[in-house]
Amino acid sequence: MVLQIEDRGRVRVLRMNRPDALNAMNNDLFAALRDALVAAERDPGVAVVVLTGAGRAFCAGQDLTEMLASAGSGGEGDAHQFPSMLEVVAGFAKPLVAAVNGLGVGIGMTILAHCDLVLMADDARLRTPFPQLGLAPEAGSSFTFADRMGRQHAADVLFSGRWFDAAECLAMGLVWKVCAAERLDAETMAVAEQWAANPIPSLVATKRLMLDADRRDLAVAAHRREVAAYVDLIGAPANAEAVAAFLDKREPDFGSIAGL
Amino acid sequence: MVLQIEDRGRVRVLRMNRPDALNAMNNDLFAALRDALVAAERDPGVAVVVLTGAGRAFCAGQDLTEMLASAGSGGEGDAHQFPSMLEVVAGFAKPLVAAVNGLGVGIGMTILAHCDLVLMADDARLRTPFPQLGLAPEAGSSFTFADRMGRQHAADVLFSGRWFDAAECLAMGLVWKVCAAERLDAETMAVAEQWAANPIPSLVATKRLMLDADRRDLAVAAHRREVAAYVDLIGAPANAEAVAAFLDKREPDFGSIAGL
Amino acid sequence: MVLQIEDRGRVRVLRMNRPDALNAMNNDLFAALRDALVAAERDPGVAVVVLTGAGRAFCAGQDLTEMLASAGSGGEGDAHQFPSMLEVVAGFAKPLVAAVNGLGVGIGMTILAHCDLVLMADDARLRTPFPQLGLAPEAGSSFTFADRMGRQHAADVLFSGRWFDAAECLAMGLVWKVCAAERLDAETMAVAEQWAANPIPSLVATKRLMLDADRRDLAVAAHRREVAAYVDLIGAPANAEAVAAFLDKREPDFGSIAGL
Repeated sequence: MVLQIEDRGRVRVLRMNRPDALNAMNNDLFAALRDALVAAERDPGVAVVVLTGAGRAFCAGQDLTEMLASAGSGGEGDAHQFPSMLEVVAGFAKPLVAAVNGLGVGIGMTILAHCDLVLMADDARLRTPFPQLGLAPEAGSSFTFADRMGRQHAADVLFSGRWFDAAECLAMGLVWKVCAAERLDAETMAVAEQWAANPIPSLVATKRLMLDADRRDLAVAAHRREVAAYVDLIGAPANAEAVAAFLDKREPDFGSIAGL
Repeated sequence: MVLQIEDRGRVRVLRMNRPDALNAMNNDLFAALRDALVAAERDPGVAVVVLTGAGRAFCAGQDLTEMLASAGSGGEGDAHQFPSMLEVVAGFAKPLVAAVNGLGVGIGMTILAHCDLVLMADDARLRTPFPQLGLAPEAGSSFTFADRMGRQHAADVLFSGRWFDAAECLAMGLVWKVCAAERLDAETMAVAEQWAANPIPSLVATKRLMLDADRRDLAVAAHRREVAAYVDLIGAPANAEAVAAFLDKREPDFGSIAGL
Repeated sequence: MVLQIEDRGRVRVLRMNRPDALNAMNNDLFAALRDALVAAERDPGVAVVVLTGAGRAFCAGQDLTEMLASAGSGGEGDAHQFPSMLEVVAGFAKPLVAAVNGLGVGIGMTILAHCDLVLMADDARLRTPFPQLGLAPEAGSSFTFADRMGRQHAADVLFSGRWFDAAECLAMGLVWKVCAAERLDAETMAVAEQWAANPIPSLVATKRLMLDADRRDLAVAAHRREVAAYVDLIGAPANAEAVAAFLDKREPDFGSIAGL
């Protein structure tokens, strides 16, 4: 199973589970995550959902092999489960809490800006290497990052493509709380259970009101512009050169991971 | 008088004054506050308005008895002064500074997001127990809280309904400055007088420009959606159970206060 | 030359250079800055632009003599290069980094909210003395300041018109990093070069996506309202009295500077 699903009382935990690929997202995982979220929305016993990763990583990003293979098809062809997963995450009807373990890259970082709360292990780190790949932001991050962190931190993340440690992510406002790696699960469950103790109709009404007020139309419009930019950039000379250089410079430890 | 009005030079201080009810807002207080704000706007000698509370509290929230009594009438009937008070606060034409003493609950917390500056005593605390009551956000807070504090802190406040102390409120960005309780009045007057030393036409033009740029239409739209959610939730089984449980669990010290 | 232009690899440094006037902006400098930005956009060898000031100041604001002389012409007549400079800065197609040395006043502070990243010397300070001049915010700051710093800090800046030191500017979110004055150039170049190492098409696409998502229409609309307010206030009794009093109270060290 690429996604583990576990209920703890009224909290449902979704754990990305491709540990050998540092939970890089392929179409199977996109689809499994989307379907699990839809099921959690419909289950009257689920009050809050937690998203986390198995093993050494939260999520190492979109599978690079798949991404490059889809270059000719406009980036997001029929077979691609990314847009529908993103739509379900961004409009999820119940409180959604992320627990970031290990590392998050690309969609492993941009998905956080669609969650209601993000906790992060103190030894975890995040990056969006879009410029290193000769590409541009995705998943609405050209809007959501400035919305969550302010324009300057968003610029720092998106123009540099560098790694950010947990302390930086907290200071920038992308992350709500940093805790020791061994406390990440317990701290996440503490807040999830506190929220889940409240009546589900109130939680659902509150989430709906927050989504309706959250200028989601701007995030959706941003995503649409990002897809157009992606189609422009992918396969162009700057992209081809950048990808080759990036693959050459990959850190040895992650050398076998497509998404890095 | 449920509202004390005092001029200190060009600063007008409005002090909510139902101390035995911890300044819980009933229709009398809503109306008095609204009328006092309108009068301050029109008075050419008033440059800045300060809002604070008499006794042990800033404002213990909307009177629960009145709120439940109005359930059948759509929550905000003709007799209810809450919407017009909110409209006047949110569009107040001069700088408005809040000085939070003791505690703020419900509207005693949500009103702060419509003020230009919020100072808070170090021993004060705030909460919006909407989920505990089986209800949803009000006063535009489904928009304004994310606008002031970011989406994650807003989620923490609105999904948990728990108490927040002054240090948390400062860190979240809801509050501009925390000071010792005995210094709250002096610190508030210091900034109010500094602003009030400037020409009133400049202050009024600046406030108008900030309001026009502040996406107030989004706050108003949020409030409209909140009222619809309120009508859905009030009197439903989850609400009835939640209110009964909430009343049972009230802290003894506040046991006699409707708004808690 | 009122503007020095220097290329360091793929980073172009623009240095405002009217040191005897603390780099107060007159029409020559507005035009030179606008033209240099347009040229940098078009130059395929420029990846990132840095804006800073020569001598003791970043920019002492709009030339007060020119500003008052244009009062009868609606504030921004044909001869005035301010609006077109502002438009080019706000929509600049490549990453734009500001390095604030010494002091910034008026447009020397409001321009920062149109940059992607702001570094500031630890001994520098900023203010917008609009209320002291009997005027109202400009350059879109009635929108951008709340967008960058939150409504409360924006209110503090715009209603008080007081000086803010580097630590305050950092805490408020207007500034991304504060460094020792002698390190300002090196720290600014470090981040500019890090960004500039990425492919320019990616940087341009990223900036475009961020601008499109940045509710720039709201900043433009704010600027339009600000101009109308300016026309109302300039030359009115409150303005004339305020300017006279302000000029009387100018700090001796800056006594000869029109913009202060």
